[in-house]
Amino acid sequence: MLTAHAYAATSATGPLTPVTVERRDVGPHDVLIEIKYCGICHSDIHNVRGEWGSAAYPLVPGHEIAGIVTEVGSEVTRHAVGDRVGVGCMVDSCRTCAPCRRGEEQYCLEGTTLTYGSVDRDGTLTQGGYSTHMVVTEDFVVAVPEGIGLDEAAPLLCAGVTTYSPLRRWGAGPGSRVAVIGLGGLGHMAVKLAHAMGAEVTVLSQSLKKMDDGLRLGADHYHATSDPETFEKLVGSFDLIVNTVSAKLDLDAYLSLVAVGGAMVNVGAPAEPLSISVFSLIMQGRSYAGSLIGGIAETQEMLDFCAEHGLGAEVEVIPAEKINEAYEQVMASDARYRFVIDTSTLG
Amino acid sequence: MLTAHAYAATSATGPLTPVTVERRDVGPHDVLIEIKYCGICHSDIHNVRGEWGSAAYPLVPGHEIAGIVTEVGSEVTRHAVGDRVGVGCMVDSCRTCAPCRRGEEQYCLEGTTLTYGSVDRDGTLTQGGYSTHMVVTEDFVVAVPEGIGLDEAAPLLCAGVTTYSPLRRWGAGPGSRVAVIGLGGLGHMAVKLAHAMGAEVTVLSQSLKKMDDGLRLGADHYHATSDPETFEKLVGSFDLIVNTVSAKLDLDAYLSLVAVGGAMVNVGAPAEPLSISVFSLIMQGRSYAGSLIGGIAETQEMLDFCAEHGLGAEVEVIPAEKINEAYEQVMASDARYRFVIDTSTLG
Repeated sequence: MLTAHAYAATSATGPLTPVTVERRDVGPHDVLIEIKYCGICHSDIHNVRGEWGSAAYPLVPGHEIAGIVTEVGSEVTRHAVGDRVGVGCMVDSCRTCAPCRRGEEQYCLEGTTLTYGSVDRDGTLTQGGYSTHMVVTEDFVVAVPEGIGLDEAAPLLCAGVTTYSPLRRWGAGPGSRVAVIGLGGLGHMAVKLAHAMGAEVTVLSQSLKKMDDGLRLGADHYHATSDPETFEKLVGSFDLIVNTVSAKLDLDAYLSLVAVGGAMVNVGAPAEPLSISVFSLIMQGRSYAGSLIGGIAETQEMLDFCAEHGLGAEVEVIPAEKINEAYEQVMASDARYRFVIDTSTLG
Repeated sequence: MLTAHAYAATSATGPLTPVTVERRDVGPHDVLIEIKYCGICHSDIHNVRGEWGSAAYPLVPGHEIAGIVTEVGSEVTRHAVGDRVGVGCMVDSCRTCAPCRRGEEQYCLEGTTLTYGSVDRDGTLTQGGYSTHMVVTEDFVVAVPEGIGLDEAAPLLCAGVTTYSPLRRWGAGPGSRVAVIGLGGLGHMAVKLAHAMGAEVTVLSQSLKKMDDGLRLGADHYHATSDPETFEKLVGSFDLIVNTVSAKLDLDAYLSLVAVGGAMVNVGAPAEPLSISVFSLIMQGRSYAGSLIGGIAETQEMLDFCAEHGLGAEVEVIPAEKINEAYEQVMASDARYRFVIDTSTLG
C-alpha cells in the first residue's frame, strides 16, 4: 500500500482540507501514476456537496488527471514507466456488457466504476485525482501525446471528451453549423474542438462578456442569449447545438434554433425536469439528446486529435491551498477556463 | 374547371356534409386523379375541429388518397392515364430550399402546401381527398404498385410513410429491437413495417385488448402500459421506440425503456408540453426525437417496400354517409385499423 497526499471534502458543507489516502498495491494489470495536474470540474463541486446524491466522506474529488507512470504491474503492456498518461471519469467497468464491448464503458450496464466516490472492484471506495498518486488498471489509462502539456491535457480527460464525443457522433465538420451554449470549462473545449473539426462555430452565451475569448478560441459568431433578438434571427440555424449549461432553460426556444433534421445535445443536466413541446421536435424532424463523457478508446482518439491540432485546455494552474477559492470562482462562472491543481503542492 | 363531389366540414362543431368543390384545370405538369379511396386519419378530425389552429370552412379533409389517373398535362412524364396513383399529406412545396432539394419536402422552409386547408401556389385553398376528383402537380403524385389494393394503399400515404420514415432513419432491421406505442392507425403500420424490415417488434399498448391483432400483424411481444411491471421489466430494452400516441405521457418512464444510444421518436404530438428529466437522456446517451410524415421519394420507396413484402393497411371500407360515425369511432380508438371512404359513394 502506498500513502498519497490529497485534498478531500469531509462534509457536504465544509471546505476541502489536506488528507492522506491509501492506494492499493500495484496489481499485475495496474499502473501507478504520479499525478502532476488535476483539473477542477464543476461536477466535483456538485459531488462533494452531495447535490447529485449523498456522498461518503472523506471524499477526494478529481477526474481530470494527468501524470507520469512510475510503476507498472507484471502483465501491463499498454504503458511503461516514464509514460505521460491521463485518467478521466472512469477507472473500471464490467468489460463484458454490450456497451463495454463496443467501447462505451461510460454506459456500462453494470455501472461504471467512477474515478471517485464509487465502489471499486475490490470493494473499496475510489478516491480521485486531487492527490499525488493513484493506482489504476491499465485499460482505463490513456496516453497523453507529446506536444500537449500535462497541465493543459488534464481537463481534456473530462471536458475534452465530453464535448468531443457528441461533436463526432453528430458529425461536426466542414459544412456543419455548430452552436455551443455556455463558454465555461466544457464550452470552451467544445468551441476549440468543433473549430478544429472544421465546423462553423457559434457561441450562445448569456452575455457578450467573454466574446473576445470566444472568437479567439475559434468561434465564428457570438450571441447573447439575454437578447431576445438572438432567438428571432437564428431560427433553424444550427445542425447541432451542444448545451454545456446545467441550468434550467427554455428548451423550445433553443430547439427552434436547430435546423431541419438537426439535434440539440445536453452534456450537462439541470436537477429539475424541463418542459418540452413535442411540436418543437416533430415539425422539423429534430432530436434532443444526451451524451455522457466518452469511452476509453474515444478518449484516446480525442487526445490524439488534440495533439494533431495543437489543442489543449485554457488553464490556470493553482496550488492546493487555492482549491476552495477556485470552487467559489467556478460556482460564479468566473473560471477562464479551467483551474488545474499543481499536485506537487498537495503535501 | 371541374366540379367534384366531396364531403366537407362547414364548422368546427357540425358534422361533415356533402358539397361540391372546384378543381383547377389540368395544367402542363398536372395530373387529374379519379379518387377511389381516401383514408380517415386522426389528424383530419383535429383539423376540421380547429384543434390545431383555426380552419377555413367549408373544409374537405383527407390526405390518404388512392385513385386512377384520368388526364395528364402536356408536359407530364411521371404518370400516364390509367396509372394507379396516390397522394399523401402534401401537394406541393417550394422545391428550392435545402430540405426540398434533399427530398424532405415535408420540412420545406417556405412551408409545405398541405393537401387540404393550405394556400396553394395559385392562391386558392387546397381541398382534400374526401372527394371524387383532384388535380395535383405530377411531382407530388406517387405510383401505387400492382399487388397493393387501392383501398389498403390509401392509408399508406400518411400512416405508412409516417412510421416508415423514422424506422428507416433510426435503422430498424435485423438485430434491432423496436417498440411501438399505441396500436391504432399509425401503430398498426409501424408494427407491420418494422416486422417486415426484420426487427424484433414489441407493442406497448394501454391494455392487452388488441394483443391478438398485434401478434397477427407481426409483433413478437405485447405489453400493457397500464401494468406498472411493464416499466420495470423492460428497462433498456429497445433500440427504438416509435410513439404513435398523441396523448400526454410520462416521458421519463418511456425513455427508461430505451437502450444505451437508442431513441424514442414521436410521430404524434400532444397539445400540451411534456416534462422531461435530462438525466433520462444523458445517462444512457439516449435521444428523443420527432418525425413528420416523409418525403415524396421516401413515400414511393415505402410503397415499393410494401408491395415487395405484400403489405397494406388493415382497412374497413365505408360509404360516405358513415364518415361522421367513423369519426366518433376513431376518437374512441375503436378503428381496426383505418376507415377508408369508398369515394364512389360521395355524390
